[in-house]
Amino acid sequence: MDVSALVEGLRSGDRRTVARMISLVEDASIETLGEVMRQIGGMTSHAYTIGVTGSPGVGKSTLTGALVSELRKRDRTVSVLAIDPTSHITGGALLGDRLRMQEHATDPGVFIRSMATRGHLGGLAWAAPHALRILDAAGVDTILVETVGVGQDEVEISAQADTTIVALAPGMGDSVQANKAGILEIADVYVVNKADREGAKQVVRDIQQMLELGAHGEWLPPVLMTTATDGTGVDEVLNAVDRHREYMDSSGEARRRRLARAAGEIREIVIGRMRAAIGTVKDSDLLAALAEQVVEHELDPYAAADKLLAEVDA
Amino acid sequence: MDVSALVEGLRSGDRRTVARMISLVEDASIETLGEVMRQIGGMTSHAYTIGVTGSPGVGKSTLTGALVSELRKRDRTVSVLAIDPTSHITGGALLGDRLRMQEHATDPGVFIRSMATRGHLGGLAWAAPHALRILDAAGVDTILVETVGVGQDEVEISAQADTTIVALAPGMGDSVQANKAGILEIADVYVVNKADREGAKQVVRDIQQMLELGAHGEWLPPVLMTTATDGTGVDEVLNAVDRHREYMDSSGEARRRRLARAAGEIREIVIGRMRAAIGTVKDSDLLAALAEQVVEHELDPYAAADKLLAEVDA
Repeated sequence: MDVSALVEGLRSGDRRTVARMISLVEDASIETLGEVMRQIGGMTSHAYTIGVTGSPGVGKSTLTGALVSELRKRDRTVSVLAIDPTSHITGGALLGDRLRMQEHATDPGVFIRSMATRGHLGGLAWAAPHALRILDAAGVDTILVETVGVGQDEVEISAQADTTIVALAPGMGDSVQANKAGILEIADVYVVNKADREGAKQVVRDIQQMLELGAHGEWLPPVLMTTATDGTGVDEVLNAVDRHREYMDSSGEARRRRLARAAGEIREIVIGRMRAAIGTVKDSDLLAALAEQVVEHELDPYAAADKLLAEVDA
Repeated sequence: MDVSALVEGLRSGDRRTVARMISLVEDASIETLGEVMRQIGGMTSHAYTIGVTGSPGVGKSTLTGALVSELRKRDRTVSVLAIDPTSHITGGALLGDRLRMQEHATDPGVFIRSMATRGHLGGLAWAAPHALRILDAAGVDTILVETVGVGQDEVEISAQADTTIVALAPGMGDSVQANKAGILEIADVYVVNKADREGAKQVVRDIQQMLELGAHGEWLPPVLMTTATDGTGVDEVLNAVDRHREYMDSSGEARRRRLARAAGEIREIVIGRMRAAIGTVKDSDLLAALAEQVVEHELDPYAAADKLLAEVDA
């Protein structure tokens, strides 16, 4: 693979090259990825990353589309990375049919890509930083990262974002359920979408009450209402994101997050190397033979891991 | 730590020992865990594991409680492992207040434990197999594993279960949303809970239609209705689980899943060793210094990982 040619294409903002390089994160060998990252190393760290998360059905895709429109009004270029943590089952991202995004399909200032995160080298914590570095190197102002699902994935994506928007909606189970799913605690900005529906104001009050009761840092996350289908309230969401960005910079929190993110990235690359090395061993029949012995109680899993580790060269 | 004494307590079914050992999965060193697993190696592989999963709000906890009641009617002993993938934020499992479980609290045939899965050595794929081996070694017939959230966690837990129940409910977003979250594809048995609510039959039809259109193996997952609050339909769910179990045994699929599970377990232990080794390096300031250099663009993350790996001794 001619990595230099790819990086040249990326530098010139060629969309097909960007798309191809994001596919590489899922498919390429760790050696190829390492070469890519080495070559784009100096090109990154200009884009601002906004995470958009929330339970299925709250209108995340629509909200993301409305945020893109608003960002374009402000003359910012945008990449959207839609992460589908489940697509290793279906064999492809389920988000191709993003109707709300179609209006942006012909805008050269907007790049949209969905991505699975269950590659052979690791999950979301592995894939997201790689993809974000590639999008960043392509020279965009803002990256929107949208995730499907609740739980571990959301928390991991919030670690990758400079500002995390948590979207909720009335009638999607009460706020206690949302809290149970843990996503309330990662929000820098709350958005109650479907504000035209009954119960929206109650959701706002519930969150505000939770914020009053709970611990939060210096930054008090605002709770905003939107009707993403017609764009109502979306400008205010972007204003809040900008205010959060200023807070992050002035408080030093931005740098702390960047350092934590870099440490996590380094750690996951080390783990990725180990996974790659195990993958090589897997191709021999050693792991299958060890699994057989564990199932037959001839070996405990730790003893089997010892034997595997002896063959692994990370 | 006196691992032998713990294992002795486990062998005699002492509940406090079981609880303590499950905490070990999150907190103990990999050396201690390895010693535990070595000592209980021969005691395991008798319990049948049922995964219960689905979006927040469908009534998973209530359904799990009803399944426990039904299992007890059939004179089976039960352990419930409630997995909370988000609790690294709150610092503790959120599931302590499991009202529906309280009726079982004094039943010596029922053991209930919730667990976080964001320990220092890995996530759910690391923690779940360890916890299941411990519960199994404690000598129970059936283990119910309940997970909060949708996405990656659900998929990982289904890999740990012999039979996976996916719970849905009317009014929780349409079935397309559930499909988007990917959980439909991991089901061995579908349960539409809150069957007394409007729209329940439509959810059943939607799933049946999806099953007709989609690919499934020899086993056609049944689609059942329950009202978990009063137990309606729960006996049929357990009957379906038993039929699935017979199918798994007779088709050889049970053994295939066990082998895949053992291979995954061995792999995660190797990765866990690597994480533990990085943890040791982290305590020195090397990782922080490397992160600083990555943020300052003095080093790309792969070069930093090379430097870290040179110091790691797994």
